[in-house]
Amino acid sequence: MPREFELIDWIAAQQAAGGLVRLAAGDDLAVLDWPGGELLLLGVDQVLDGVHFDSSQHTPLQIGRKVMNRNLSDCAAMACLPAAAVATVALPRGTPMDYARDLYSGMKEAADAFACAIVGGDTAAWDGKLVMTVSILGRSGGIAPVLRKGARPGDLLCVTGALGGSLLGRHMDFVPRIELARTLAATGKVAAMIDISDGLSRDLSHICKAAGVGAIVDAARLPIHGDAVKLSQRDGVTPLDHALHDGEDHELLLAWRADAPPPPPAVPIGWFTAERGMWLDLAGQRRPLDPRGWEHSF
Amino acid sequence: MPREFELIDWIAAQQAAGGLVRLAAGDDLAVLDWPGGELLLLGVDQVLDGVHFDSSQHTPLQIGRKVMNRNLSDCAAMACLPAAAVATVALPRGTPMDYARDLYSGMKEAADAFACAIVGGDTAAWDGKLVMTVSILGRSGGIAPVLRKGARPGDLLCVTGALGGSLLGRHMDFVPRIELARTLAATGKVAAMIDISDGLSRDLSHICKAAGVGAIVDAARLPIHGDAVKLSQRDGVTPLDHALHDGEDHELLLAWRADAPPPPPAVPIGWFTAERGMWLDLAGQRRPLDPRGWEHSF
Repeated sequence: MPREFELIDWIAAQQAAGGLVRLAAGDDLAVLDWPGGELLLLGVDQVLDGVHFDSSQHTPLQIGRKVMNRNLSDCAAMACLPAAAVATVALPRGTPMDYARDLYSGMKEAADAFACAIVGGDTAAWDGKLVMTVSILGRSGGIAPVLRKGARPGDLLCVTGALGGSLLGRHMDFVPRIELARTLAATGKVAAMIDISDGLSRDLSHICKAAGVGAIVDAARLPIHGDAVKLSQRDGVTPLDHALHDGEDHELLLAWRADAPPPPPAVPIGWFTAERGMWLDLAGQRRPLDPRGWEHSF
Repeated sequence: MPREFELIDWIAAQQAAGGLVRLAAGDDLAVLDWPGGELLLLGVDQVLDGVHFDSSQHTPLQIGRKVMNRNLSDCAAMACLPAAAVATVALPRGTPMDYARDLYSGMKEAADAFACAIVGGDTAAWDGKLVMTVSILGRSGGIAPVLRKGARPGDLLCVTGALGGSLLGRHMDFVPRIELARTLAATGKVAAMIDISDGLSRDLSHICKAAGVGAIVDAARLPIHGDAVKLSQRDGVTPLDHALHDGEDHELLLAWRADAPPPPPAVPIGWFTAERGMWLDLAGQRRPLDPRGWEHSF
């Protein structure tokens, strides 16, 4: 039977102090130096077998990458730089050590791409299915965090890529839009931002609620991903509905405050309104757009 | 069926900005101001149904308190002040909303006792059993973090309370030793420290390994908890073995570098040695002390 501390030793050997990290994993808490005056951001996300991934289909490298990338995508949504992360894993009894290491390696590969240090964690074994969590610490790095509540009537509603059908595979292998987020935010024209994790309609409703505004989505402008078309052929749901309601695209949805549209790949797909509520504009006809997308029911 | 966002709204309503917290839950990440020059500490712990608690026996308030207190106890081990926490919960389908709220209220009650803000989290539902995690952010607050690796030969080995038998109930209802840790560390005489979560023998081995030293525990000085005696009557394991190897006491184990013993409730129970290894001194007879305690096998 693989043993916890064997795994922890192995993980500790993958780590090093440096940069902000004064002391990496191996003590009760990691220690980080913090440059004076910077804002610090903190968040967490989890992935559960059978909900966010399927351990019978996805590799441990993919699963590890996904839980880290979900958190990195939250950094993108705030336009902050990831600085450090801690992780937990609840391993099903009987998990081979190589599998556990691959989970970590997947996280590390995703974190390394953005110079984010994994500085600690907690490992346990149980009779249940695989659960992983990552908590991420971000830093403002010279760009004010972009909040959801900043949207105002008249702002352009924009998205950074084609949506829908992520279930065909992209939900496991997306690239967090951190660099794009910071490039856009550095212009000072991004009034509000979120990453699309629960689905466009649901995540747009989060922005609208936070800002006390409404929004209109122009169906003709919505970039629909090829996967949404493919999935439509399987399940009969229209590609448009897939693009509007599917979760885990992890593109950015943002309020752009300028007369000229944002630079590509961001494209305008509608605008924010003073009247609360959400509408879909279908060739000039407006119909209510209800938040669907992903919500956990328990 | 209770809905995730209903719960999240309720949680958000429990929170407020203030102090270090510029923006609490309700966005992708919490935003915290950080005073220049302070060290920041980051850690995470999880609790799993059937491993760290038993949902058929323990109340959701107890479970929520425990996952938070495990993290606060990590702050005690480093002698830092808790500043902010984020949490995840994986709820079994069919969990009543009141139960989910009690989980949060338990966390909040424990965090409030140390002015620690819960600034974010992630909620999901699944077919598995209850899983909770808390990630905690600490700040040095004028006292240098106490590391495991600081122990040197000749340091007194001390513990802050009686050990053993926590399984009878104390493992769910301990009080993190943060104030005591900071009082002790402020003397400058605490060379190394850890909280006893995996068991004295296991956690002492962590200090010895990190510091490259050995240790001798004097059995006659080890404070044995009444629960260890009670449990001994049930399971035939000696009270001493319970005190040496039981996990989740969450007392502090520390290396004290001074001629005089530490102030109570800390008491010397042995000393650190240049020779590596761990020994138990039983009325002058030494026998090897193997790290047992808690280790997850998977």
